[in-house]
Amino acid sequence: MRSTSPPEAFPAHTPAASQIFTTVLSHGPLTRSEIAGRTRLSAAAVTKAVRPLIEAGYLLEDVAEDGRQPALGRPANPVRVDGGRALFIGIKMTGDELIAVLTDLCCRIRVARHVSLTSRAPRSVLASTAALVQELLTEADGFGVRVQGIGIAVSGDVDRSAGVVRYSPFLEWRDVPLAELAGMTTGLPVTVDNDVRALTVAEQWFGAGVGLSDFALVTVGAGIGCGLVVHGQVVAGAHGVAGEIGHVAIDPAGPLCDCGNRGCVEAIASDSAIVAQVREVTGVRVADAAAALDLAHDGDPGAREVYARAGEAIGRGIATVANLLGPERVIISGEGLAAYDLFAEQIRDAFGAAAFGSAAMCDVQTRPLPFEEWARGAAATAIQSFITSEAH
Amino acid sequence: MRSTSPPEAFPAHTPAASQIFTTVLSHGPLTRSEIAGRTRLSAAAVTKAVRPLIEAGYLLEDVAEDGRQPALGRPANPVRVDGGRALFIGIKMTGDELIAVLTDLCCRIRVARHVSLTSRAPRSVLASTAALVQELLTEADGFGVRVQGIGIAVSGDVDRSAGVVRYSPFLEWRDVPLAELAGMTTGLPVTVDNDVRALTVAEQWFGAGVGLSDFALVTVGAGIGCGLVVHGQVVAGAHGVAGEIGHVAIDPAGPLCDCGNRGCVEAIASDSAIVAQVREVTGVRVADAAAALDLAHDGDPGAREVYARAGEAIGRGIATVANLLGPERVIISGEGLAAYDLFAEQIRDAFGAAAFGSAAMCDVQTRPLPFEEWARGAAATAIQSFITSEAH
Ligand SMILES: [Zn+2]
Ligand SMILES: [Zn+2]
Repeated sequence: MRSTSPPEAFPAHTPAASQIFTTVLSHGPLTRSEIAGRTRLSAAAVTKAVRPLIEAGYLLEDVAEDGRQPALGRPANPVRVDGGRALFIGIKMTGDELIAVLTDLCCRIRVARHVSLTSRAPRSVLASTAALVQELLTEADGFGVRVQGIGIAVSGDVDRSAGVVRYSPFLEWRDVPLAELAGMTTGLPVTVDNDVRALTVAEQWFGAGVGLSDFALVTVGAGIGCGLVVHGQVVAGAHGVAGEIGHVAIDPAGPLCDCGNRGCVEAIASDSAIVAQVREVTGVRVADAAAALDLAHDGDPGAREVYARAGEAIGRGIATVANLLGPERVIISGEGLAAYDLFAEQIRDAFGAAAFGSAAMCDVQTRPLPFEEWARGAAATAIQSFITSEAH
Repeated sequence: MRSTSPPEAFPAHTPAASQIFTTVLSHGPLTRSEIAGRTRLSAAAVTKAVRPLIEAGYLLEDVAEDGRQPALGRPANPVRVDGGRALFIGIKMTGDELIAVLTDLCCRIRVARHVSLTSRAPRSVLASTAALVQELLTEADGFGVRVQGIGIAVSGDVDRSAGVVRYSPFLEWRDVPLAELAGMTTGLPVTVDNDVRALTVAEQWFGAGVGLSDFALVTVGAGIGCGLVVHGQVVAGAHGVAGEIGHVAIDPAGPLCDCGNRGCVEAIASDSAIVAQVREVTGVRVADAAAALDLAHDGDPGAREVYARAGEAIGRGIATVANLLGPERVIISGEGLAAYDLFAEQIRDAFGAAAFGSAAMCDVQTRPLPFEEWARGAAATAIQSFITSEAH
């Protein structure tokens, strides 16, 4: 195993300092008074917190526009994050492969890699992970900056604070202490989170959720997931479960779901549900979601009807989120967006019909996110842990 | 109109000071170091914020247990709120009557009153409100303390920050600037909020939600409402709609709802839905919810089945909340609890079946709240506005 020097501590030792850095990361460049306005902290508190961050090179003070050297520390000088100051690794684990990215402190992807898994046994997956991390650490050497942490995103029930994958159906894992195990094999701090929540963190800090205190990210594909940001924070659930839009039951006469109920959104609109229904309706033994999609795109009316019903289920699920939480925006993403032309109208119509009163004013938008974005979401959680590690 | 002296300003001029006072209000008595621990503020910040609150008489420093005079300002002395320091008025408006309470600063009810409404026209309701406030102000004179604010709770779509009732079906109001109008007629600051959210504030600060960062309050009765606390704050919704568990659609083949959809929880489990279904199933022309309840309590199997279905709908609605938000606790309340023996088991069973994974660990409990509690909820919002008025 290649040796790594121990990661350094981030010089923000209070929740306020973390909050200030996060604000500049999402919204920068900002002047100190703009930071004070956004964080509702005093100008003195901002000035005090910014100084060590500049000294340690995490924040840069911009040169005045007229090109003259600015008087450092002036409230009117904008400060911004030096993205090149630190590197992070994000890994998305699926049942079949690992997708990994090396990002900078602003979560920009510098290198992307993936490897297929030969086995789902934790020992084997960890060995593949260690090898992939090794590759990316070698790449990182070229940047001359240290990798400060690793984020790993896994679908299923994940306890981020304990670093444990409680249950992941695709990996067939139960109670795997992934953060500890991966930390031992890589020598770096590891953050483990649910994949949809990780993607939500990336959207909140660097994507379509920047500046919004309440939004939802709905992912469609192999599963139907949902990340929720309420009052500016990702909802994790008191017992580890939250955002289970896939198991919102919308029809007691609908198809049976893996969870045991009938008519869950996922039992109607997930890839496997769509494949099963297309086979049943058309009699064609489509091999997978791509084949089902081809059949519908070729105009098969039965297959198109299955996608229309899936869209209606997704729209009703989104309306339920809107009726309960009233988010400013719902972002629809995930690999299932490949079928968007087949169900966009149904999502919109079902949402409009089922949204109550002004909840219908919610801005529902789609955002195709390539598969590396899931790994980037994992990197965002590592950045988040790094920034807040000394603050709690 | 009886004249009132203008209300005084609360001596907490920062969000931190409001947070400290709120913490003592909900959890007190607390020592300064306990306050620092709970608020995650520095001991110095707590000491600084507590001093003016003691000087103005809002906080009391407890005498040491051995009866000796304590050295004031010692970190080990517990401080608590002097409930008698200020009075508030809370009013719940229904389509038929006004229920009003006079409470102290700890939201303890000192006097309760109600009057029937002769008309739902805003002008008439405002005249009744002014007369009722007048009565309570006269009562308040006996306590020798000033009334600092009025809270008014109304069912429907209420914009608290604007002080406007956007739409209240029971009152048949649209866009009534109630805070401004009631403020002019009473000379006191008026806070207007949705009735379920107001009750949620009272539960969060003084009831079954104290100490919980994530809980839901579900009210059953004329409507099916839900107040949500996420990350320690009541969810208001970006566009004014939130907590609409009543319009979570659980059965596309269910009865038609006022909102235009089929199978909303409210279309199955509200008082009027139950009355309609009992009439249809039994052929008995029950006059109202009380008569329907009597019929079921007398053992009529058709009526009992209607209540069982209502319980199932409520349980499924609660499971949807749990699957999306993972709250620590769900509190079921409202006048509909009179039928609890008829649907408690169905609520529990449906919740257990539809809750996903560890979301089922959520503590679902019932809490009968007498009707004055709704008015007390309104008083809680007035207390909240008073405490935070200088902080924003
Ligand atoms: Zn399910
Ligand atoms: Zn409805």
